Amino acid sequence: MKYISILGSTGSIGTQTLDVVREHSDKITVCAISGNNNIELLLKQIIEFTPELCCVMDDSNALKLKELLPPHIKTEIVSGMEGLIAIAEYEKSEIIVTAVSGMIGLKPTVAAIKKGKSIALANKETLVTGGSYIINLSKKHNAKIFPVDSEHSAIFQCLMANESKAVNKILLTASGGPFRGKNEEFLKTVTVEDALKHPSWSMGKKITIDSATLMNKGLEVIEAKFLFDIEPEQIEVIVHPQSIIHSGVEFIDHSTIAQLGLPDMRIPIQFALFYPRRMRNNYKSLSLTDIGTLTFEKPDLSTFKCLSLAFEALRAGGTMPAVLNASNEACVRLFLDKRISFLDIGNINEKVMLSHTPAKIDSIETILEAEEFAKQMVINLTKGRG
Amino acid sequence: MKYISILGSTGSIGTQTLDVVREHSDKITVCAISGNNNIELLLKQIIEFTPELCCVMDDSNALKLKELLPPHIKTEIVSGMEGLIAIAEYEKSEIIVTAVSGMIGLKPTVAAIKKGKSIALANKETLVTGGSYIINLSKKHNAKIFPVDSEHSAIFQCLMANESKAVNKILLTASGGPFRGKNEEFLKTVTVEDALKHPSWSMGKKITIDSATLMNKGLEVIEAKFLFDIEPEQIEVIVHPQSIIHSGVEFIDHSTIAQLGLPDMRIPIQFALFYPRRMRNNYKSLSLTDIGTLTFEKPDLSTFKCLSLAFEALRAGGTMPAVLNASNEACVRLFLDKRISFLDIGNINEKVMLSHTPAKIDSIETILEAEEFAKQMVINLTKGRG
Repeated sequence: MKYISILGSTGSIGTQTLDVVREHSDKITVCAISGNNNIELLLKQIIEFTPELCCVMDDSNALKLKELLPPHIKTEIVSGMEGLIAIAEYEKSEIIVTAVSGMIGLKPTVAAIKKGKSIALANKETLVTGGSYIINLSKKHNAKIFPVDSEHSAIFQCLMANESKAVNKILLTASGGPFRGKNEEFLKTVTVEDALKHPSWSMGKKITIDSATLMNKGLEVIEAKFLFDIEPEQIEVIVHPQSIIHSGVEFIDHSTIAQLGLPDMRIPIQFALFYPRRMRNNYKSLSLTDIGTLTFEKPDLSTFKCLSLAFEALRAGGTMPAVLNASNEACVRLFLDKRISFLDIGNINEKVMLSHTPAKIDSIETILEAEEFAKQMVINLTKGRG
Repeated sequence: MKYISILGSTGSIGTQTLDVVREHSDKITVCAISGNNNIELLLKQIIEFTPELCCVMDDSNALKLKELLPPHIKTEIVSGMEGLIAIAEYEKSEIIVTAVSGMIGLKPTVAAIKKGKSIALANKETLVTGGSYIINLSKKHNAKIFPVDSEHSAIFQCLMANESKAVNKILLTASGGPFRGKNEEFLKTVTVEDALKHPSWSMGKKITIDSATLMNKGLEVIEAKFLFDIEPEQIEVIVHPQSIIHSGVEFIDHSTIAQLGLPDMRIPIQFALFYPRRMRNNYKSLSLTDIGTLTFEKPDLSTFKCLSLAFEALRAGGTMPAVLNASNEACVRLFLDKRISFLDIGNINEKVMLSHTPAKIDSIETILEAEEFAKQMVINLTKGRG
């Protein structure tokens, strides 16, 4: 039996992780879960999976949930960052699924790594902001990191049984988002509703906007650099609208290995939970002949500047990726609140990066300071709007 | 230093193997080579690679070559099947590249296996005719088999680090040959010259005709069954005209791993010679964005009946694949000699199979008898033609 904790069990990755658990309930037990606002769903999950611990970020929501619990349920309810860290450090749990979105995932992930737990990494911000600090920490504590993101899971699968020094380049595929092929003129007028329509994957709002700006791909480039210990120049982003090839690796012998499948996040989640075993499931088979055509194009880096900024942040190093990420997080929130335009996201991110001098990361505090700097800069730059 | 023998060094795979040796001359030494008619090229190869042994199948050609050898060259010249077996068993050689085409490859490959040597398998007939007899023999003598065929090398690479029981199905890609999309009416009139134009790979005549009839893919289906120990039902042939995805594997978790690259046989040859290491080379990188589009379609099994016959031969088992192969070998020769038509190849193969009752294979002799039966049947069926 595998024991797991899920940070963010009510989100898109969280609920799909529970789908995987449901399918393999004879092999996985959920010890601890966490949520934020959706206490109705949390309650359902507690009743179905009877975890020993559940964290609700907000204190008053935690209290509400506690009152709703049926008397026979013994799940302990905790709250706040302290509670989230308790979920991450929960003794019985071997694997921590970090499915929370945003910077909030950093501290609990670090806590889990320090306990030597395996991380099923779905929280982008951990590696984007922490980079080599996190990787070194995980090596020190012998904590394994299994990527859950479909692209990084694909690369991870392609690298199996191959030496990392045999990698020539990584092919990171991108759907291109809803605005693929559009020019700046068009993007000036797009609305929040336009941006929330993603062609292939069903995901949360933040990541859907990031897909539309290609920032999501930029964050994945940063993650890939640290996960697979390669240079930014070794990462080629390929726009592949069908999202069937989830990514690949070209080796030094010019043989390319790629991972393919229908867009279904349960496949990489299951892979991360059961690695190195592949488990039978009832998901749909990929039929290349039904799909018929796969296409590939170069990304438009001048229109979708967020992707370029990610490469630039990597080259600048240190706290720069954390600054870009925090700036972007703030900008996406402002865009979703209709206070800035779609193109403002990239423009503001660029200005924030220009105003930052990157520092070496030697603790979480350095990261959080960089984040604070970026947030403040976004506030300054957008003062008086909306 | 790796020491190798090459059976068939003057053919398409043989010369490309020598290209690989040339590129890695500090790591591979060619101990022994063999050829048939092209003694001019054999002479050049002897002068460049100074193997210790060289076999020429034909006695008088062997004599001619001997006379052409410069006095400082100490290469011993042998001839006939005995000579070929000496190449395969050559003590110093660790890897035997079986790059001869046709049934002639069977005996020397078996001889090499019995000496426990690794086989870089490019001779299709070995597994097509010998099947599980060969596989069991290789297990008994601890002789490893590394496929050289681009499709099987692709599958082999996709299976690395995965359990064979985790395989759901194998995706065997086919270019579709020069007559993809054509109907029977069209095929009635095609000439040898039409059939020799292959869209993606540059290969020998026999294999090019087999590509046009899809028999080549049928033989690969048979090989795949034995190489990877799977059922015929687990093999899906996919027509993929661009020949970029060289094949793939869908696992039970519905994750598909595929191997891609530009069509260049030196990549799988190099992989077979250096497994498990990937070696840097100066071949061309695959650029998916340059290629732009990959397409996939189901094969037309009623027009290209050779492919169906291969599946039927596998289901019939025993000597049936050997009979199909020998019948096809004879038919292709007759077609190249313009004595039968393109469609006759499939029709005669079918008739020969119908007239055969498969026997269990327990020795090379059983295989050779089945071959003899098929050849005789083809002669009977084509009597009075051409």
